[in-house]
Amino acid sequence: MKILVINAGSSSLKYQLFNMDDETVIAKGNCERIGLDGSFLVHKLSDGSKKEYREQMKDHTDAIKLVFKALTDREVGVIKSMEEISAVGHRVVQGGETFTRPVLIDDKVKAAIEEMIPLAPLHNPANLAGINACQRIMPNTPQVAVFDTAFHQTMPKKAFIYAIPYEYYEKYKIRRYGFHGTSHRFISETAAKFLGRENDPELKIVTCHLGNGSSFTAVKGGKCVDTSMGMTPLEGIPMGTRSGSIDPAIIEHIMKRENISISKAIEVLNTKSGMLGISGFSSDFRDLEDAELQGNERAILAREVFAYCGSKYIASYAAAMGGIDAVVFAGGVGENDGDIRMKMCQNLGFMGIRIDPERNNVRGKVALLSYDDSPVKVLLIPTNEEYAITHFTRDVVEALGR
Amino acid sequence: MKILVINAGSSSLKYQLFNMDDETVIAKGNCERIGLDGSFLVHKLSDGSKKEYREQMKDHTDAIKLVFKALTDREVGVIKSMEEISAVGHRVVQGGETFTRPVLIDDKVKAAIEEMIPLAPLHNPANLAGINACQRIMPNTPQVAVFDTAFHQTMPKKAFIYAIPYEYYEKYKIRRYGFHGTSHRFISETAAKFLGRENDPELKIVTCHLGNGSSFTAVKGGKCVDTSMGMTPLEGIPMGTRSGSIDPAIIEHIMKRENISISKAIEVLNTKSGMLGISGFSSDFRDLEDAELQGNERAILAREVFAYCGSKYIASYAAAMGGIDAVVFAGGVGENDGDIRMKMCQNLGFMGIRIDPERNNVRGKVALLSYDDSPVKVLLIPTNEEYAITHFTRDVVEALGR
Repeated sequence: MKILVINAGSSSLKYQLFNMDDETVIAKGNCERIGLDGSFLVHKLSDGSKKEYREQMKDHTDAIKLVFKALTDREVGVIKSMEEISAVGHRVVQGGETFTRPVLIDDKVKAAIEEMIPLAPLHNPANLAGINACQRIMPNTPQVAVFDTAFHQTMPKKAFIYAIPYEYYEKYKIRRYGFHGTSHRFISETAAKFLGRENDPELKIVTCHLGNGSSFTAVKGGKCVDTSMGMTPLEGIPMGTRSGSIDPAIIEHIMKRENISISKAIEVLNTKSGMLGISGFSSDFRDLEDAELQGNERAILAREVFAYCGSKYIASYAAAMGGIDAVVFAGGVGENDGDIRMKMCQNLGFMGIRIDPERNNVRGKVALLSYDDSPVKVLLIPTNEEYAITHFTRDVVEALGR
Repeated sequence: MKILVINAGSSSLKYQLFNMDDETVIAKGNCERIGLDGSFLVHKLSDGSKKEYREQMKDHTDAIKLVFKALTDREVGVIKSMEEISAVGHRVVQGGETFTRPVLIDDKVKAAIEEMIPLAPLHNPANLAGINACQRIMPNTPQVAVFDTAFHQTMPKKAFIYAIPYEYYEKYKIRRYGFHGTSHRFISETAAKFLGRENDPELKIVTCHLGNGSSFTAVKGGKCVDTSMGMTPLEGIPMGTRSGSIDPAIIEHIMKRENISISKAIEVLNTKSGMLGISGFSSDFRDLEDAELQGNERAILAREVFAYCGSKYIASYAAAMGGIDAVVFAGGVGENDGDIRMKMCQNLGFMGIRIDPERNNVRGKVALLSYDDSPVKVLLIPTNEEYAITHFTRDVVEALGR
């Protein structure tokens, strides 16, 4: 079974074709500068070979057409016809309060995604464009929408409501939605299986999806009860370039001192802050680690802040659930940066978290990182959103009996 | 020994005269509408009697003169002359990175308080006006500045730096300062004495100052290592009318949807949010409790959010310190609202916090609230900022040998 995953942005369209039989990526690529001059696609195969297509793409339909051209290319193609693709899974950022699970896309679903545009003005229109383009080109293939927010819809109200005028929730739907939900669901389900406690309503897990964007989720009995990202992916722990939570009053200070608009200030918090803001030179955790080894104080500080905030989130989610059974690390940083995992856990012995430095010396594969006698298990479970989307897309398609 | 405490706002000046021998308030009052039409002072005595003075106060010097008139009034006066006042303690909101302890006021101190005005544009000028007025009228009495921020200056950089462009810290001094420091220091010192561990560098306490404004502080070995308020008192847990931490991106949404300025949006977050925002009718925890008993869902939600966020802060500060020995409640809500204390602790059994419902049935006096076998002690220690200021003012004056 082959599943295509589409992640459409406003001027880009990323795709990955998965072989579900051996869980490998057959091919992937990114259409860039859609609707702009000089649009192009770099198509990559699992053997490392690649081909660049410099073709004008005026919209997402052109982009999807080019993707299909690349996938069936005589030279670098991996399939003979689009019929080989069993389903397409679309990442959709904002599912609002409507979608609690991945769904087969129909007109009603598209209308609902459109309704949610005010909550995700950059993302949802692009996601819809990707869906429409695929439907046009492969009308008989099931299209599935997998929402970043869906898994978090089980949060209780005390976790999702902001302490702002209540009418803002009623009128504008301003509330915590959370993101990375596809990944948090996937890694918490995989962890439950690993622990042999798949249907245990008392199983309490904190999932740590750490990458360029990072978020923490408290998962009790398979259901999200709290998460660190908010109405947008800006809230929570400091990230690669995002500030995470700050004193809201700081925004007014920045605007006045720098003489910039609110949009510009929020852009600064999204793109020039986080690890980049503190270190002053990079948002990449590997760069920071290299600089840390050379004694760069701001790089050391950036990684310290990240680990410190992370450890506070893990402990606070233990409070949310009345304790925890497992902490799960995933995402580019979570899977590859053992030093961050160690720093995040080292002060949590008081709550039964004891990570083993030897076991922690591992990258990118399912592994137990805690000592055998650690009351709380620490796990590494590889994930990425595309990978998780294929799983949930397959589940939806299989439930249809196709 | 009698100490006068002055808390000067932009158009108000609160005072309390303390008798340090029996730790009672002899008299107190509030000059209101200073510099405006219809200014007045209501002066209250410990026996409940009061007198109102409707006199024009064009500035803080007029206000201090009126305070002294009331204190020495033939009818309701409590002292014969100002010579009876041994010292004046002034609350100063923002001491920046300069002041780590209360200090005797001299010209250098005043210049530093003035320098900090950009960080506290409403408060520091008013505090200075109060200091100047007292110096003019009682030039021979020691004046002590007690800073809201001073106790928090021991925070490590990983706790006080925001993940925003680092130059904002260097250029504009944007960082976490924390507030209520006078109270957090007072209650953590009192708790250490109560536990018989006054000079123990390993003693780990979370102090919970819960009132109209609320903040949490992690205190290790008598030193603040983290605190929940930020650059301003807006950050942290939701409060009476303040939002506490929210997704920073929400501010842009509110501004656009409501068509208001950044100043207005921050004002909404300071004055129309928190418990008032969620409940829709009151910022007063007693009102909310009454409404909760009548089944008002929004009042129930507001109190739930408050307790839930509080329990997450307590746990996160255990992560900051690698565990905790004691949790201390103080402030108007912390001292009087046993239900909030109970709700905040009930999910923290996993970390050794076991509150006794019977012992918790107490108000406004030093008390142990946890079971004898609770690994973490839960204490109630009454405080208020004025009360704490008298203690630290006395310490400064006594160190001078006066």
